[in-house]
Amino acid sequence: MCKPEKQPSAKSLGEHAIIELMRSRFEAMPDVVVPFGDDVSALPFGEGDVAVLKADMLVGKTDVPAGMSFWQAARKAVVMNVSDFASKGAVPRAVMVSLGLPPNLTQSDLVALADGLNAGAREYGCYVVGGDTAETSGLIVSVQVYGASKKDGLMLRGGAVVGDVLAVTGLFGKSVAGLQLLLNGSLRVPERSCGALVDAVLMPQARLREGLALRASGAVSACMDSSDGLVWCLNELGVQSGVGFVVSNLPVAKEAQEFAELNMLDAAELALYGGEEYELVLTVKPDLWAAAEAAVAGVGGKLLPIGKATAGKRVLLDLNGKQRVIHARGYEHFKT
Amino acid sequence: MCKPEKQPSAKSLGEHAIIELMRSRFEAMPDVVVPFGDDVSALPFGEGDVAVLKADMLVGKTDVPAGMSFWQAARKAVVMNVSDFASKGAVPRAVMVSLGLPPNLTQSDLVALADGLNAGAREYGCYVVGGDTAETSGLIVSVQVYGASKKDGLMLRGGAVVGDVLAVTGLFGKSVAGLQLLLNGSLRVPERSCGALVDAVLMPQARLREGLALRASGAVSACMDSSDGLVWCLNELGVQSGVGFVVSNLPVAKEAQEFAELNMLDAAELALYGGEEYELVLTVKPDLWAAAEAAVAGVGGKLLPIGKATAGKRVLLDLNGKQRVIHARGYEHFKT
Repeated sequence: MCKPEKQPSAKSLGEHAIIELMRSRFEAMPDVVVPFGDDVSALPFGEGDVAVLKADMLVGKTDVPAGMSFWQAARKAVVMNVSDFASKGAVPRAVMVSLGLPPNLTQSDLVALADGLNAGAREYGCYVVGGDTAETSGLIVSVQVYGASKKDGLMLRGGAVVGDVLAVTGLFGKSVAGLQLLLNGSLRVPERSCGALVDAVLMPQARLREGLALRASGAVSACMDSSDGLVWCLNELGVQSGVGFVVSNLPVAKEAQEFAELNMLDAAELALYGGEEYELVLTVKPDLWAAAEAAVAGVGGKLLPIGKATAGKRVLLDLNGKQRVIHARGYEHFKT
Repeated sequence: MCKPEKQPSAKSLGEHAIIELMRSRFEAMPDVVVPFGDDVSALPFGEGDVAVLKADMLVGKTDVPAGMSFWQAARKAVVMNVSDFASKGAVPRAVMVSLGLPPNLTQSDLVALADGLNAGAREYGCYVVGGDTAETSGLIVSVQVYGASKKDGLMLRGGAVVGDVLAVTGLFGKSVAGLQLLLNGSLRVPERSCGALVDAVLMPQARLREGLALRASGAVSACMDSSDGLVWCLNELGVQSGVGFVVSNLPVAKEAQEFAELNMLDAAELALYGGEEYELVLTVKPDLWAAAEAAVAGVGGKLLPIGKATAGKRVLLDLNGKQRVIHARGYEHFKT
């Protein structure tokens, strides 16, 4: 009997397999400086300089929860791209945007989108310099950011070595808790924490000042942003650097902890797998820890040590002396 | 009685008004070299150099007619961006792509999309260097192209002066005829013309060689690509340069002429308003016409004089000695 081969669908493959499949088909640029697989792409421009490029698209249906305004959605689309620049320590300069707009959007919706794009760009010293619009059934905000940088010192994903201090620029779990609050009215949270949780979803911040200061410190061996979740980051940094990690101090936000306790959820799960957070996850050369910490403090931020890079090639969580393996799993489009 | 103000919708505004509305909300980059309103954006990079950026998005629902494969659609998404680089005489270098993928696409659809993107990039000497995927209800191929260029000599829209020769790099009307053939099986066309018409839709070509040669000739005063239709181009070049045009030699492709005659359509209408064509429409300094013509011939192309720039600020079509005004109207998303 003839049985046609059943092709896997985008849905069954999931986002990471799709990206891997596609990049395997692209011919590699011979002189590329940062190829596929890092937070940004970079190519040479003049002597020792690189052009830095990032493209990341916000899709209304999946990335804009109930309660998020057009202004906030457009701003967020810029912030998610800036966050990738932050993680490399590169200055973003110009924003291009392709907007897919449903035909029933009103003029004030369009103004809100434009103002949100402008606000996101200006918050980080950029300008919107060009773009394009088209008609789509749901909102699409496809943003590209361009910047120029010295080639030396870009903080890539693959530089961590055994013994490096694992660190983050903030606490985790607020975005996922805030998102659950927005989506499910029956969840509870103390009044005083509500704003912080919802703000984490609606008004995310890119750690650009911190990323630029960290790069300037020369203390960082590897870095990425945590938009796909903390565990995904640790897995990526580990694979690309050829190391493992032990996390001995899980960076759980107190608001996420309270939210978890009140709603019988696991706070560690929220912090590990939440995603849509824009902290930097990085490794620091142990002898330069003080320099890295001072650099971040100098721009008003805080660098938190959470563990260290190991030879074990796995990610272990050390909770009160008991170690367990954390498996790679992050937020993936298509599969969720 | 209370009567709430009725807001215009995206649909009633149309693409050009939406773009105008949005760009009026963006703060202008102080040192931008080519701002909004030209085919590309450009900003300074080092001494006398500029970074050139373009973003243009292909939407499955509106930009991919029946009969166009995923490979062709993805390739076209790159070609439409390269065409804008061609019109400025700038070398495109790197392609970034944000893909919105419906979850039911199969693995071979994804391979076709990737291969089409790669083919479009490599045809014009570029590489796909990065991107992003997300789940959408319909296919979205949002492409951004980056290149570097000398600042001097970029062929902008606003440089035409009265007396300049109006020229094009090819004949018009094939794309719109081909599209009608694909959409409406009852239309007729001679067998020998069918391939050329359908190819114009499925396998558009950017005039990159011609654009680079024209810039090098130093003979061009203004240029843009004709993706929104010939009349839209003439209107734009006229408004931005402060001139009008008389078109005395309408560049109608013979296949479009035959198609129009057989189907009782107006060939001039097809050539003037068709859109989705990627010819260059330009003005040439009269004393340098021979240089421009030779430059295009040198790369295997043909430069066709079709009229001249006038002080009249209108676009006139001269058909057998009778002049009529051609009103600005081009392909617009939302309104069509």
